[in-house]
Amino acid sequence: MQRTSFRDMHCSLARTLDVAGEWWSPLILRDLFVGIARFDELQEDLGISAKVLSERLRALTRAGIAERKPYQSRPRRDSYVLTAKGRALVPPLLALMAWGDRWASPDRRPPMLLRHERCGRLMTAQVTCSRCGGDIVADEVTPLAGPGGARAAGTRVIAKMLAPAQPVREAGSRGPARHRATRR
Amino acid sequence: MQRTSFRDMHCSLARTLDVAGEWWSPLILRDLFVGIARFDELQEDLGISAKVLSERLRALTRAGIAERKPYQSRPRRDSYVLTAKGRALVPPLLALMAWGDRWASPDRRPPMLLRHERCGRLMTAQVTCSRCGGDIVADEVTPLAGPGGARAAGTRVIAKMLAPAQPVREAGSRGPARHRATRR
Repeated sequence: MQRTSFRDMHCSLARTLDVAGEWWSPLILRDLFVGIARFDELQEDLGISAKVLSERLRALTRAGIAERKPYQSRPRRDSYVLTAKGRALVPPLLALMAWGDRWASPDRRPPMLLRHERCGRLMTAQVTCSRCGGDIVADEVTPLAGPGGARAAGTRVIAKMLAPAQPVREAGSRGPARHRATRR
Repeated sequence: MQRTSFRDMHCSLARTLDVAGEWWSPLILRDLFVGIARFDELQEDLGISAKVLSERLRALTRAGIAERKPYQSRPRRDSYVLTAKGRALVPPLLALMAWGDRWASPDRRPPMLLRHERCGRLMTAQVTCSRCGGDIVADEVTPLAGPGGARAAGTRVIAKMLAPAQPVREAGSRGPARHRATRR
């Protein structure tokens, strides 16, 4: 693959795409989430060459997102499962899927439904605020400069235009907690 | 770009990636969200060739995700803004960013912070259940066959392994509502 690496960018979206955003990778993660584990089944599901699938699985494994589990020794056959790091990617992918159901579905019929076992109901993935629990709408979110930002490739203009996060709105008891807000 | 199109797959994640998942596209959407609108500023921010940026902006415009707004006529200069469809992609991208803050940040210092204007606080994007509001965890979500599923390229194995959504758990008053759950 001849592509610019996003790894060194000071942007957590770029870093996420760097390890999980190559063409096919999100669909491989989808398959692992659904429970397709064997190399040959992944290949059959996606209709992808063994070479590309191997490359992607190697990258996902190297990034600690998937784990290889041999399930047969002679001849050796591999299966793959998501790690905790990989399982943590599933909710954002389900949020992207919900967008596709709403905005990129030619017939408005969702190909996949999701049951939330905690409440037992069919649901969609929504993106909400970690502080107030309300739905996040783009117009109501203000991006601010974070402590890890830098003026470098991939964020050259962003770095100079974002306002620093002022403690003003969270003065008093919440002051020092604001930077922790982005770390779960 | 020589790549398989995901457009015809019976999968809303694949369809989302098809219109917004090419290399660079999510970062262009990030920039438009942040307020970088001019072609030359996008190019400076990302360190990307004019050719690649034009291609991506054309694809995003064609998909109805971004809109071109000329801001100068002689010589003509273009700027771009997100449409409603594009703004709806921002929350899922913020959820991917939150994953990067947590799992792909070498120094654990978030490059960007987000203030939710509705509650006034610094927050992260969380993915929650549209029905009970609880956090979504991969292990607590069961994928089921949806009405738009098909056994075709990209979902050959998935289509035969997913159980159909049974009305059992939502019998009675909620029965017919279950398919609507995925349409907002």
